[in-house]
Amino acid sequence: MSRARRVAVVGATGAVGQEFLAVLAERRFPLASLRLLASPRSAGRRLRFAGEELPVEPLTPDAFRGVDLALFSAGGTVAREYARHAVAAGAVVVDNSSAFRMDPNVPLVVPEINLAAARNHQGVIANPNCSTILLCLTLRPLQVAAGLRRVVVSTYQAASGAGQRAMEELRAATTSLVLEGRRPAPKVLPHSLAFNLFPQVDVFTEGGFTREEDKMQNETRKILDLPDLPVEATCVRVPVERCHSESVSVELDRSLTPAAAREAFVRAAGVVVVDGDPAYPMPVFVAGTDPVAVGRIRASRAFAHGLCYWLVGDQLRKGAALNAVQIAENL
Amino acid sequence: MSRARRVAVVGATGAVGQEFLAVLAERRFPLASLRLLASPRSAGRRLRFAGEELPVEPLTPDAFRGVDLALFSAGGTVAREYARHAVAAGAVVVDNSSAFRMDPNVPLVVPEINLAAARNHQGVIANPNCSTILLCLTLRPLQVAAGLRRVVVSTYQAASGAGQRAMEELRAATTSLVLEGRRPAPKVLPHSLAFNLFPQVDVFTEGGFTREEDKMQNETRKILDLPDLPVEATCVRVPVERCHSESVSVELDRSLTPAAAREAFVRAAGVVVVDGDPAYPMPVFVAGTDPVAVGRIRASRAFAHGLCYWLVGDQLRKGAALNAVQIAENL
Repeated sequence: MSRARRVAVVGATGAVGQEFLAVLAERRFPLASLRLLASPRSAGRRLRFAGEELPVEPLTPDAFRGVDLALFSAGGTVAREYARHAVAAGAVVVDNSSAFRMDPNVPLVVPEINLAAARNHQGVIANPNCSTILLCLTLRPLQVAAGLRRVVVSTYQAASGAGQRAMEELRAATTSLVLEGRRPAPKVLPHSLAFNLFPQVDVFTEGGFTREEDKMQNETRKILDLPDLPVEATCVRVPVERCHSESVSVELDRSLTPAAAREAFVRAAGVVVVDGDPAYPMPVFVAGTDPVAVGRIRASRAFAHGLCYWLVGDQLRKGAALNAVQIAENL
Repeated sequence: MSRARRVAVVGATGAVGQEFLAVLAERRFPLASLRLLASPRSAGRRLRFAGEELPVEPLTPDAFRGVDLALFSAGGTVAREYARHAVAAGAVVVDNSSAFRMDPNVPLVVPEINLAAARNHQGVIANPNCSTILLCLTLRPLQVAAGLRRVVVSTYQAASGAGQRAMEELRAATTSLVLEGRRPAPKVLPHSLAFNLFPQVDVFTEGGFTREEDKMQNETRKILDLPDLPVEATCVRVPVERCHSESVSVELDRSLTPAAAREAFVRAAGVVVVDGDPAYPMPVFVAGTDPVAVGRIRASRAFAHGLCYWLVGDQLRKGAALNAVQIAENL
């Protein structure tokens, strides 16, 4: 990872885009140049990066000339349209949208788990769904230690998972509710999040599940290379600004004590165990940190060989920007 | 239920106590008299009831003279000390604390499920844990239709479940955070709930579970009369003012389609299905209503015969005061 790269960040003004800039700077990613791309609406703005102000340029088909690495976080539609221009210009694309994740020709990579898959890329590498990255980082050590039979997971997903504007809407709506007793109609989220929550992240698909819940099953299967693993997810948006939490129940092939599971988590890259003071991970303490935090590790009451645990991860960092930059660092 | 009763409410100034008064008034419970009892700290206050102002009297051992029915919501310690005085004075006690729930001589009653058990009382009837009442109301129709094999549940519990002062603390902390960027140290809850959440309700017991999670297994077994049913719960406090939500996965003995489960829920007393507009239950819409609201009913991805669904209930009403008053109405 010594060769300096010419990098473009697509969707630089969004919540994940901002996090891309923070992570690139913090990790001293070897940059030969950095180009910030966004929709025409945001072009012309200037963003701070490592003490400098950089202009935001409009995303156009020829914006990738001279770019080695394009970090996309601009949604599936933009990715489907512009990734091919970046690849044609000779760049490797790491895309944070769901556009290419289930494409059998596109590696879906969590570096701590399946970095080898990234080597077979054909120009595009997909960054998994945020809730899925956090889940897989904790499932992997259990898979290695005792085999996975089935997973039941319920999420507690922050407003920022729906973008910067959703986070601002949560703040504004809560302020209005507390100070004026008035609950403004939501514009970004499907319902008001002020002192409220709702069991829907992304759109409904078939069987009554949502696309987010489908992703948690399908992407987990691809990342862990367990094509038949049952993953039953219920994804819920909660009035938290940042960090997704997950309550996880796992049936294993073989017995694994909570103490042995704790050891496996402690040894796993990208995972930190929190069971001291505080006694478990919480969004306010995990926000802004890199590893997924695991706690409440206990023997299952539902399965003879099983565990349940609690995880919290910063979905803008390891759940998105950090994971993508880690992929790029290892190319 | 025609004979008018002389009623005492113990813990009248608390969140559930206030709800007792609201429910007694709304349901026109036949009252010959109503006495409000509370700790010496609260005695002397006056509370509104059905257009009148009633004095709050101090709770003493002889406060139950001439009382037929004592509705307790004052915690386990007070219940253990004063319930016997009420019974000695000839009153029937319906206690909302956990003090007597697992006592084999005390019925643990959800009227829609096991009202018959109440008839065998020896002076005290226990009102179940709030999260457990909501869960059991939805498990019962599935148990009848297809048999229950195991339950995995994750909760999203409102601040009000920790009492009036916790609800006030959530509002004050959130206001301070939004307006002053300052997160005040919590005094009532173990951690700040402002745009935060934490996986702990009640104290830790053995095996890494909490007492709330133990209650959800043990009380569910007693109410449904399934002494070996595995119930794996993860109980989480969320920044919602009122209403507990639960994400439930159930393995059944026999196959049951989501459509058949929906029918069973529609027919069940105390349950309402919400799958129109809005498409699922949410705390803001369910607050202040009586039935537990169920939605997101779908075929399990974890179990061959199984279902998952989402429920929301007002834990101060059906989860506490309403359930206790319904027990009293049927005595």
